[in-house]
Amino acid sequence: MEQLRVQTEKALQEMLPSGWRVPSRLSEAVRYSLDAGGKRLRPILTLASAESVAGCASAREKALPFAAAVEMVHTYSLIHDDLPAMDNDDFRRGRPTNHKVFGEAMAILAGDGLLTHAFYVAAQAVGRGVPAERTVAVVAELARYAGLPGMVGGQADDMMGEQGITSLEDLENIHLHKTSDLIVFSLRAGGHASEANERQLEALGLFGRNVGLAFQILDDILDLTGDEKKLGKPLKSDERQGKVTYPYLIGLDESRRRVARLTDEAIAAVGSAGLADAQPLIRIANVMMSRDH
Amino acid sequence: MEQLRVQTEKALQEMLPSGWRVPSRLSEAVRYSLDAGGKRLRPILTLASAESVAGCASAREKALPFAAAVEMVHTYSLIHDDLPAMDNDDFRRGRPTNHKVFGEAMAILAGDGLLTHAFYVAAQAVGRGVPAERTVAVVAELARYAGLPGMVGGQADDMMGEQGITSLEDLENIHLHKTSDLIVFSLRAGGHASEANERQLEALGLFGRNVGLAFQILDDILDLTGDEKKLGKPLKSDERQGKVTYPYLIGLDESRRRVARLTDEAIAAVGSAGLADAQPLIRIANVMMSRDH
Repeated sequence: MEQLRVQTEKALQEMLPSGWRVPSRLSEAVRYSLDAGGKRLRPILTLASAESVAGCASAREKALPFAAAVEMVHTYSLIHDDLPAMDNDDFRRGRPTNHKVFGEAMAILAGDGLLTHAFYVAAQAVGRGVPAERTVAVVAELARYAGLPGMVGGQADDMMGEQGITSLEDLENIHLHKTSDLIVFSLRAGGHASEANERQLEALGLFGRNVGLAFQILDDILDLTGDEKKLGKPLKSDERQGKVTYPYLIGLDESRRRVARLTDEAIAAVGSAGLADAQPLIRIANVMMSRDH
Repeated sequence: MEQLRVQTEKALQEMLPSGWRVPSRLSEAVRYSLDAGGKRLRPILTLASAESVAGCASAREKALPFAAAVEMVHTYSLIHDDLPAMDNDDFRRGRPTNHKVFGEAMAILAGDGLLTHAFYVAAQAVGRGVPAERTVAVVAELARYAGLPGMVGGQADDMMGEQGITSLEDLENIHLHKTSDLIVFSLRAGGHASEANERQLEALGLFGRNVGLAFQILDDILDLTGDEKKLGKPLKSDERQGKVTYPYLIGLDESRRRVARLTDEAIAAVGSAGLADAQPLIRIANVMMSRDH
């Protein structure tokens, strides 16, 4: 995973606009958030997906534009989510949020610019040998999974439902769109880069859906039972913010069983989809679900 | 032009998400701004460009996804520009702005969703017979002209320079990105839909650059000399807001000469680029520059 993370970091640097004039303050705001680190989970999944379908590590090269694009979309969504009108967060990953440093207007523009640039970067896949038809398909999928029926829709649902979530179905629906959709895209985009067939793409999507949900449930569990030092934030912040979580709705034990079941199903899906080598994806699923922060 | 506008309106309705679940309040916010009308100048130029390159009206069909996409991008930019942290406008086209009706958070998400959906719509051009290679090129150009080195960059420059613009060069640079870039895209996208060659694309881009600048200068002139009733807003609003304009920097007469010169150059560019029939574009340029509102 470390190797994939390093490859992602390099691609992110290379794929920022260069040779074009971008106002320097806007550039700084974009880099501030993009360089803030994080797990780079989504691009790592894109690269692992491309490798699993093709059965060789060199297949990741073609998928790099999609990997960089998905991280740019994820980063823009964090910048906009942190805005005063949205979650109004002052800190992220131990640093002041984008609008705290650059002001609200610049943070809005940095988010808009990153989202837009993600599509430029995705389109560059044709230059690495991904067929144009596949590249267009990935553009459409990015727009769908990140857009109105996907991540943006999930964010709107979350915002509107904040007080009124009472059922597991409501909660799952929000996470499916707010979190899983972009992870589903990450997997499918890697698959397209290696010219996966329809059956493989569906299995990759199911893997992403389940891993995304399990990831979210584990976040909720760690907020109650984790180690404050490793998490880098105080425990029980969900409770204090009045957030409806999986443990709140179904208890800790059932939440843990759900993580295990979703992970098993994810692994089974890619294990039986006729991928050249499902191991890169299976390894990541296991690492993700045994994390303690 | 009316025919092209009607075609655009129909495409905009057809190309909004359907069959996917989008939160209803988010859908309403998107439609509120998209249905607000306006001149639909950019999509009209896309359709006229496709027609001019191919020499027949039926060529517009292929360009409809690009036409709808550019209007969605333009609409998102207005929603975000009006936000309190940006221009803080309460009214647009005589109606309350998006955030005044739906709240700031929903307006941010509606803008994000429209921008994202524009790329979904552009990608649908392959289904109308535009080659995948051309469609990928259009996606990359939309991201470039609307993005960090384009419209978003121009908006950032405008915001940062608001007090300090003293030269015509500064002012022109802002308008080239804030306004002209998306118009350049509109023209080139129509060209790509009709498989224009490199020379034709360059001429279409120059037409867009000049028409975009002339359009902006004419806006500045009308703010000083227009008819309040036709404009739908009080005169001299630029002066009251302390905006630096072309008439302010170079006077009314020189501003008028500049509009005429830019229009002539735009018409000359498409007149000598070997288009099948430059007339649809030339007619629009003339209509645009003789407008009184």
